[in-house]
Amino acid sequence: MAYTIIDGCPSTSGDDFQLNTTTLLKHAARVYPEVEVVSRRSDGTLFRYNYKGVHERCQQMANALVRLGVKPGDRIGVMGWNTHRYFELYFAISGIGAAVLQMNLRLPPHDLSYVVNHSEAKFIFVDESLVPLVEAVAGDLKTVEGFVVMTDEKLDENRVQLRPVMSYETLMAAEEPVFDWPMINERSTYSASYSSGTTGKPKGVYYSHRCIYLHTTAVVIDQRVCHNDVIIQIVPMFHCQGWGLWLCGPMTGAKMVFPGPYSVDTAGALVDLIVSEKVTFGGGSPAIFMPMLEYIRTLPEKPDLSGLRMVSGASEPPLSMMQGYWDLGHAQIVHGYGATETTPIILINTPKPAIDHWPQEDKWNNQRKQGLPLPGSECKIVDAEGHAVPSDGETMGEILFRGPWVTREYYDDPRTIDCFTEDGFWKSGDVGTVDAHGYVKVTDRIKDVIKSGGEWISSIDLENAIMGNENVLEACVVGLSHPKWDERPVAFVVLNPYRADKSVTKEDILKRLEGRFAKWQLPDEVIFVDELPKTSVGKLDKKVLRAENEHFFR
Amino acid sequence: MAYTIIDGCPSTSGDDFQLNTTTLLKHAARVYPEVEVVSRRSDGTLFRYNYKGVHERCQQMANALVRLGVKPGDRIGVMGWNTHRYFELYFAISGIGAAVLQMNLRLPPHDLSYVVNHSEAKFIFVDESLVPLVEAVAGDLKTVEGFVVMTDEKLDENRVQLRPVMSYETLMAAEEPVFDWPMINERSTYSASYSSGTTGKPKGVYYSHRCIYLHTTAVVIDQRVCHNDVIIQIVPMFHCQGWGLWLCGPMTGAKMVFPGPYSVDTAGALVDLIVSEKVTFGGGSPAIFMPMLEYIRTLPEKPDLSGLRMVSGASEPPLSMMQGYWDLGHAQIVHGYGATETTPIILINTPKPAIDHWPQEDKWNNQRKQGLPLPGSECKIVDAEGHAVPSDGETMGEILFRGPWVTREYYDDPRTIDCFTEDGFWKSGDVGTVDAHGYVKVTDRIKDVIKSGGEWISSIDLENAIMGNENVLEACVVGLSHPKWDERPVAFVVLNPYRADKSVTKEDILKRLEGRFAKWQLPDEVIFVDELPKTSVGKLDKKVLRAENEHFFR
Repeated sequence: MAYTIIDGCPSTSGDDFQLNTTTLLKHAARVYPEVEVVSRRSDGTLFRYNYKGVHERCQQMANALVRLGVKPGDRIGVMGWNTHRYFELYFAISGIGAAVLQMNLRLPPHDLSYVVNHSEAKFIFVDESLVPLVEAVAGDLKTVEGFVVMTDEKLDENRVQLRPVMSYETLMAAEEPVFDWPMINERSTYSASYSSGTTGKPKGVYYSHRCIYLHTTAVVIDQRVCHNDVIIQIVPMFHCQGWGLWLCGPMTGAKMVFPGPYSVDTAGALVDLIVSEKVTFGGGSPAIFMPMLEYIRTLPEKPDLSGLRMVSGASEPPLSMMQGYWDLGHAQIVHGYGATETTPIILINTPKPAIDHWPQEDKWNNQRKQGLPLPGSECKIVDAEGHAVPSDGETMGEILFRGPWVTREYYDDPRTIDCFTEDGFWKSGDVGTVDAHGYVKVTDRIKDVIKSGGEWISSIDLENAIMGNENVLEACVVGLSHPKWDERPVAFVVLNPYRADKSVTKEDILKRLEGRFAKWQLPDEVIFVDELPKTSVGKLDKKVLRAENEHFFR
Repeated sequence: MAYTIIDGCPSTSGDDFQLNTTTLLKHAARVYPEVEVVSRRSDGTLFRYNYKGVHERCQQMANALVRLGVKPGDRIGVMGWNTHRYFELYFAISGIGAAVLQMNLRLPPHDLSYVVNHSEAKFIFVDESLVPLVEAVAGDLKTVEGFVVMTDEKLDENRVQLRPVMSYETLMAAEEPVFDWPMINERSTYSASYSSGTTGKPKGVYYSHRCIYLHTTAVVIDQRVCHNDVIIQIVPMFHCQGWGLWLCGPMTGAKMVFPGPYSVDTAGALVDLIVSEKVTFGGGSPAIFMPMLEYIRTLPEKPDLSGLRMVSGASEPPLSMMQGYWDLGHAQIVHGYGATETTPIILINTPKPAIDHWPQEDKWNNQRKQGLPLPGSECKIVDAEGHAVPSDGETMGEILFRGPWVTREYYDDPRTIDCFTEDGFWKSGDVGTVDAHGYVKVTDRIKDVIKSGGEWISSIDLENAIMGNENVLEACVVGLSHPKWDERPVAFVVLNPYRADKSVTKEDILKRLEGRFAKWQLPDEVIFVDELPKTSVGKLDKKVLRAENEHFFR
C-alpha cells in the first residue's frame, strides 16, 4: 500500500456488496430487457438481439466455461473483432471469476506468445478470420489447453490447425441459459491488457472488477450517457477493453452497436452503421475519424450527425477534423486522454459552462487540450521536486494520476518500481500544464522535455514552431547535455528539397521563434541534416539523436 | 458477511484508493473552482461563494475540528437547516475520519436524546434558531463535550444556555485554509441517520463513505446530472442526508442552492429561489411540492419551469400535481422510492424509451409507480417462500433490496436480525409488483397485506376502490385470522354523513368492487363504523383493528 488509510467508525452499509460486471449485466437484463444489441457479421449483415438475450447467452457461456474446467482466477485469451461474442465473453469469463486476456492482434508474434505465456492463459477464444494469427504462435504457447473458434458458420475443423479445437456456438448450444452468478471479489482481475512500449516486453495491467465498474461510472457521468443513447464500439475491445465503452450500455440501458471487423480502408462501413443505427456516442482516434470524414465527403448527400458525440484519443484531434464533424449537424469530437495504465479514460475535454462566453476561436483552441480529470480520479502536475505547478497554463511538470482505475503496479514485473511515486501516483511520462479552469494540456514526453537551468522547455512546441517555416520539411529538437545548464536545446532540421529559399540559415530559423519563446528557450544551435532517425513505427527517435550528440557541448 | 465472495486473480488496479467524500470535494475545487454555491440566510438574503471557497472553508473547519480534539471515528451531532454550513460540515467532519450525526429536528425530545446518547456524539453543531431544541435535551446528553452555534451574527453567549459554547465562524476564522486530507477507509462511517418507526426507539443507520459515493454516482447517472445543472437542496439534510443531493453538485460541477429555513407555510420562497437561481434539479415530497404549486397558482405571471426536474419521494405524487408542474413548461416530477436503510434513493420512475409510444394517459399512470432500480443495486420481489414473483405487474411479493448503499444491519441494535435475509437483502416491509418493463409498484405494507389461501390481497387497492364510492368517507381493510384461509379481508367503512343515499348496504359496497377484483379477493364482511383508529401522525392504525377483531372468524 502506497498511502496510509485512516479508519473511522465502522459503518452499517452493505460494504461487502462487490462492484462487478455481473451486477451491470443483470441490471440491463432486468431493467432494459427489450433494448437492442446489434452486431455486424463479417459478411456485413447484422445480428440483432437484446439485453435479455445477451444475459441468456452469457449464462449459457458461463455454463460452458465451467464445463471446460475454467476456474476462478484462470486467464482466458480472447482474440477477436468488436462483436457481440466479445461482449458476451467479457461478462461470461469475468462473471465466473476468471479473467479475459485481451490479445492485441497488432502485436508481433514474439510479443503475442510472451503475453499468453506470461499470463498463463488456459484457453484461447479466437474469431475465425484471426485463426492464422494464433496458429502462427500456437507452438510457443506453454499453458493453453484448448482453442474455441468464434464463427457464424459451422466450424470446419479441417481448416484449422489448432488442437484441441471447439466451436463457440456449439459449446453454447449445449447449455441452459441459467447460471447462478457468484459474488466475485471486486479486487479480482476481470480482464488484462498488456502495454507495449517501443522497448522491452509488454507490461501487464490486470484490471479489477472494481476498476472497470468505477471507470464506467465516471465515463457515463462525464459524457451523460443514458438510455436514449446508441453506443458504437469502434475502439478495439482487444486492447484497453475498447475504453470500456461496451459497459456503458448495460449500466445505462443504452443500445449497443458492434461493428465487427473494419479497417481504415473500410471506414465508410462505420459511417453507414452510425447513420442507420442512429448512433449518438462512441470513441476512437483521429486515425479512424479522418478516413470516416473523408468517406462522408464523397457522399452526394451529407448525413445529419446531430446528437453524435465521439471521444477522440491516442493523439491530438486536428482542428479541421473537429470542425468537419461539427459542420455535419454539430457532431462533437471531444478530446480524451488515457493509457493502458488508466483503464484508459482519465481526462476528457468537456467544455465547461464557465467558458461558454469565450470567442469561438478560443473555444476551438481549448478543445485541443487533453481536458479535465474525471470525477473520482486525482491528477497532479509536479515539478522536478514533486511540488504541484501553478494552474497558469504555462508552467510544465510531469503529469501524475491516482485513482480506482489507475494501475498501482505491473503484473509480475520488476519495472513497476520506476513507474510509481511513493504515495501511489502513476508517473505517466507525459509533461504538461494545467490552466486556471483545470484543463490539462500535454506538451511533451518527460524523456524528451529539455531541462535547462532548472526550467523545462517543450521540445514539441519548438518543433511545431520551426515546422511553421515553409522551407522546413521536418524538425526535431532535443536537449543535449550541457556543463553549465544541465541541458540546452539543439534543433535538427531537414529542409524541404523543393524550398523556394535555397540559402536558409540558422538565423532564419531562430528569427521566426523570437517573440513566441523566451530567449533562454531558443535552441543554442540549428543543425541541418538530410534525414532524421525514426523508430520502427515511424516516430522520431530522439534517443538516437541524443546518443549521437552526447558530447556536443562538452 | 451474508454471502460468499469468490476470489479471482489479484488485480494490479488501484483498489486501495478509497472512495470518499474528500475526493469529490477536491475534484470540485480543482475542476470547478468558479462554480457558485448559494445559501439563503434566515433573513432571506443570499450568501454566495464557489467551490474554491467551499474547499477553503472546509479546510479551515477541519483544522478547527482537530484543534477541538475530534478524532477519526468520533461522532459529531449537527442540527441545522439546509445551509452552506451544513454542506461544509459534511465534508469537514467526514474528511477527518469522523462522522456527522444527523439530528432530526422533528424527533420528540426523548428520541433526540436517545439518538445522541446511542451514537455517543462528542460535540453538537446547531443553527442559532434551533438552539432551544438542543437546550431542551442538553441535561440528558451523556457524551457531549461542547456545543458550536452556527450564526450569521456575532454569537451572544448570554442568550444560549448550552455550555461550553463556541461560534462556528469564530472557530473557522482562527484557522488556515489548508488541510492535508487523509485517505479515509471507505468502509468508515461518514454520517449516521436514525430511522424512526411508529414503535420502539429509532434505529441507527451508519452510512459509509463508499455508500454515499456510490449512491451519488447512481443518482447522477440516472438523473443525468451535469455541470449545466443547478441543484436545490430542498430535502432536509438532517435526515437521510437530504437524499445525498448535495454531493451531486461536487461530483458533477453543478451549482448548488441551499434554501435555509423554510416550511410548508413559506413554500413560496422556494419557488422564488428556483426561478431566480435558474434551478434545474432537486428533490422533495408532495408535502412541499403541493404548497409550492399552490403558491405558483397565486402568481399573476406563471414562471417558466422548463428544464426543471424534481424527484418526489415519501408518498405517491398525485397525478394532478405532476400535471400541474408539467403545465409550467414541462417541468417533471419524477417519483422515487427509498428509505433510511437505502441512503435513500433506490428506485426512480424514469420513463424509458420503450414506453415513448404509449398513450399519454398510460404514461401518466405509469408515472405513479415507484420506478426502476438504480444501476448498481439489486431489487427482488419475492413470495412467502422467497421465490421471485413473475414480472407481470400483478403478482405481489415483498420487496427486497441489496447493494452498496443498502444497509446490512442496524448500529448496535438487536432488531437487525428480523430485517435482513440470509443472503444480505434488506426486507423493506413493502409489498409490491414488477411489470414486464421492470417498473416496481408498491401496493401495501407487508404487515397489512392480506394472506388468504396462499395468495396476497392488497388492502390498499381495496380501500382505494371502496373510497371511490361517493357515499364513503373512509375505509380500512384488514386481514383477520381465519381457520381455513389463514386470513380473510374485512372492510371497515365510515359512511359520509352528508351522503345522498342514506341506506348504503354491504352489497352496495361490494357490488362496486366486482369486475375489478377476483371473487376470492373481495372482503368477506363490510362493517360500518363511526370512526377508524389512527396513529399519532394520523395514519390508519390497522394493528388496533386487527387486535380488536382477532376472533372475528374463530
